[in-house]
Amino acid sequence: MPLASKTLRQLGAELADGRTTSRALTEEALDAATASSEAATAFLAVHAATARATADAVDRLRTARVPLPPLAGIPISIKDLFDEAGEVTRAGSRVLDGAAPASRDSLVVQRLRAAGAVIVGRTNMTEFAYSGLGLNPHYGTPRNPWDRATGRIPGGSSSGAAVSVTDGMAAAAIGSDTGGSVRIPSALCGLTGFKPTANRISTEGVLPLSSTLDSIGPLARSVDCCALLDAVLSGGAACAPAPASLAGRSLAVPKTVALDGLDATVAAAFELACRKVSAAGARLVPMDLPEFAELVHINRLGGFLAAEAWAWHASLLQAREAEYDPRVAVRIRRGEKMLASDYLDLLAQRPRWIAGVQQRLAHANCDTVLMPTVPVVAPPIAALLASDDLYGSTNLLMLRNPTFINFLDGCALSLPCHRAGDAPVGLMLAAPRGHDQQVLALGFAVEQALSR
Amino acid sequence: MPLASKTLRQLGAELADGRTTSRALTEEALDAATASSEAATAFLAVHAATARATADAVDRLRTARVPLPPLAGIPISIKDLFDEAGEVTRAGSRVLDGAAPASRDSLVVQRLRAAGAVIVGRTNMTEFAYSGLGLNPHYGTPRNPWDRATGRIPGGSSSGAAVSVTDGMAAAAIGSDTGGSVRIPSALCGLTGFKPTANRISTEGVLPLSSTLDSIGPLARSVDCCALLDAVLSGGAACAPAPASLAGRSLAVPKTVALDGLDATVAAAFELACRKVSAAGARLVPMDLPEFAELVHINRLGGFLAAEAWAWHASLLQAREAEYDPRVAVRIRRGEKMLASDYLDLLAQRPRWIAGVQQRLAHANCDTVLMPTVPVVAPPIAALLASDDLYGSTNLLMLRNPTFINFLDGCALSLPCHRAGDAPVGLMLAAPRGHDQQVLALGFAVEQALSR
Repeated sequence: MPLASKTLRQLGAELADGRTTSRALTEEALDAATASSEAATAFLAVHAATARATADAVDRLRTARVPLPPLAGIPISIKDLFDEAGEVTRAGSRVLDGAAPASRDSLVVQRLRAAGAVIVGRTNMTEFAYSGLGLNPHYGTPRNPWDRATGRIPGGSSSGAAVSVTDGMAAAAIGSDTGGSVRIPSALCGLTGFKPTANRISTEGVLPLSSTLDSIGPLARSVDCCALLDAVLSGGAACAPAPASLAGRSLAVPKTVALDGLDATVAAAFELACRKVSAAGARLVPMDLPEFAELVHINRLGGFLAAEAWAWHASLLQAREAEYDPRVAVRIRRGEKMLASDYLDLLAQRPRWIAGVQQRLAHANCDTVLMPTVPVVAPPIAALLASDDLYGSTNLLMLRNPTFINFLDGCALSLPCHRAGDAPVGLMLAAPRGHDQQVLALGFAVEQALSR
Repeated sequence: MPLASKTLRQLGAELADGRTTSRALTEEALDAATASSEAATAFLAVHAATARATADAVDRLRTARVPLPPLAGIPISIKDLFDEAGEVTRAGSRVLDGAAPASRDSLVVQRLRAAGAVIVGRTNMTEFAYSGLGLNPHYGTPRNPWDRATGRIPGGSSSGAAVSVTDGMAAAAIGSDTGGSVRIPSALCGLTGFKPTANRISTEGVLPLSSTLDSIGPLARSVDCCALLDAVLSGGAACAPAPASLAGRSLAVPKTVALDGLDATVAAAFELACRKVSAAGARLVPMDLPEFAELVHINRLGGFLAAEAWAWHASLLQAREAEYDPRVAVRIRRGEKMLASDYLDLLAQRPRWIAGVQQRLAHANCDTVLMPTVPVVAPPIAALLASDDLYGSTNLLMLRNPTFINFLDGCALSLPCHRAGDAPVGLMLAAPRGHDQQVLALGFAVEQALSR
């Protein structure tokens, strides 16, 4: 079952030398995406007919030795917030059931198709992407692959995206990340996720959560997969950045907030990861980042997310609030009373906050930051469903570290750093705005170090 | 008295060939700026010592045949909202009396000094620039030069700026324009004013009214003066754009709102101006611009201006409201209750509005718009002081046409188009964002056409 274990480059090689066909990979993906109990919650729509047609077309082109683009014939899933021509974009909600189908593909989907991808279907998500846990009361919640018996959260909001990859329903998934929605499910499910600098990838045709913070990125099996998909999504050249060396590099490890409240599993995995990165020649620099402690206060009214989500949802929520997940509705409503001057304060504070973090990094000659993506392993679904308080506190804990990088307008990888079979733990490698290629290049080196 | 009648280029020529000296021009400016009853209200500070020192230094350099920058030795006034090192920036208020002096010059003042300008002093303005009439209850209101006996408004908010030029206290003035504050006093006082595209000239060190709409521009005697000053302020090359020909050009004349409520003087002057522009070969295209009618609704809560002014003033106003002009305070307070979602609506609507106007212009092959700067001649000060209602309605009337161009993020000249001795009337030549050089180049041609 190559889809459940192989990287995009490995699949590409198998296709190129005839060990498999796109149709075979697509059938494997469609089987997985329709057969299991997880499949029913991972996908909100499966595009069997168009997937098969695309796969067959690629196979014919390959047989005819037509030069093919980098994702040719490889099954990819997309989150339910990307417009596809002819499909209704629901973003995991019920309130958009009656909406008009999209008249054309989002730019991201256009680029995936142009790169030869087989779009398997649309993946489940936290309604409107407004939580990091991945619970969805309308369509159910796919269970984390690590411990299906207990039934643990996959992380969110790109919940189905992660499970579509872990369970071999797609070779990689495209998600979105406004406060961690790519990185959290990647960390909890043992995948590699990449959150690019927000403005690098167009959000045209993407249902927004926060126009300021939304970014679009892949969940996949390796840094190389992420680099390849990022090149496609951003319209850049499909060459991966050359792996960097960790020798002589300085990486900041925040002493403020980011290491608070780690559970024993995450603490041990992070410590081991740091030792491996050090052993590869990097210098880890423990760093006070008081800005991290200030962010809770800056975002006390809900931040850009609440203001911008409310602006988008106001009329829809007022008309159909009963059909919203109440836990999502209450969070959107946080933006209702936010004043224009509160919003302008955010706009004024953010550049100062960013400059503060960047100056501390530059002063210590660090261009990247290393921290656990999330401080705890995936908790059980049932307990979170049962308690609003536990839902709220756990959600804040999951979002805490990823959100630093969204507010920084930065970019970050989450890499798996647990032992195979153990509870998945994510290691976040992050950098300021525009350092995407550098994070990917260093990510290769960190990935190699972790594998030792 | 060359300052009261000559352009910057004429003054430069007189300085270059020894017919006058910078010290002589500066003494003339200082005499005018301290002697008359208008001077007391036009300037809030006169920099006699530094002006004389600068003038003498330039004269010595000129005698030594050192090459000199374009404004060398020419007296220029600056509005009271530009930081000057060592001066308190009050923006026409009393509430900043106790503020710390600026630690350094605003970028605009740095550039003026680097271009050799003699900074005569700081000109009076509507408190915090928040009105188009120019009334200032703290420092008095300079009277419009056209009809001193009646005592008419100079227009605002750059009120002292205009009078400093009409009365020979400076060869040109630097003002700011957020909703017409350069163009309205230029129109009412018979000067040529230029409002550039907002982001072309840095507002660093300038006390803000609206961070979105604020722009910085000159009030002077000719289009050539404006072009020269604009080049200095923007840090560009000091060459003026070559005059364009009007032959074959299409200029839109809005049929929507912009020609409503003209008084007889403005109507006659505008009609004559249109005839002269047509006679010079331009085609005037009457155009429906429904966007102009929508703007009142879009800005019904106060727009960017109220939101952004409130965000800046909130703590100051709450502490010292009694010391504000109550007519300014009440307008700043319009932003107090504006919601973040109202502000986000503005951000979402503006690009659509701009695109609508631009498409109509492009469709008719027009790249510029022609309209009266303000629809009526300068009204008497006393009546406006006596009635809040008249103040409010007259202010809206004055701001109406200029504000279209601020919301468009465009650029515009106001050119005098009245007969000498008559009540001044301004003709506005405007264009979308970034067409500054084109407006200046066409402005030369319109200026020539009007002089026939």
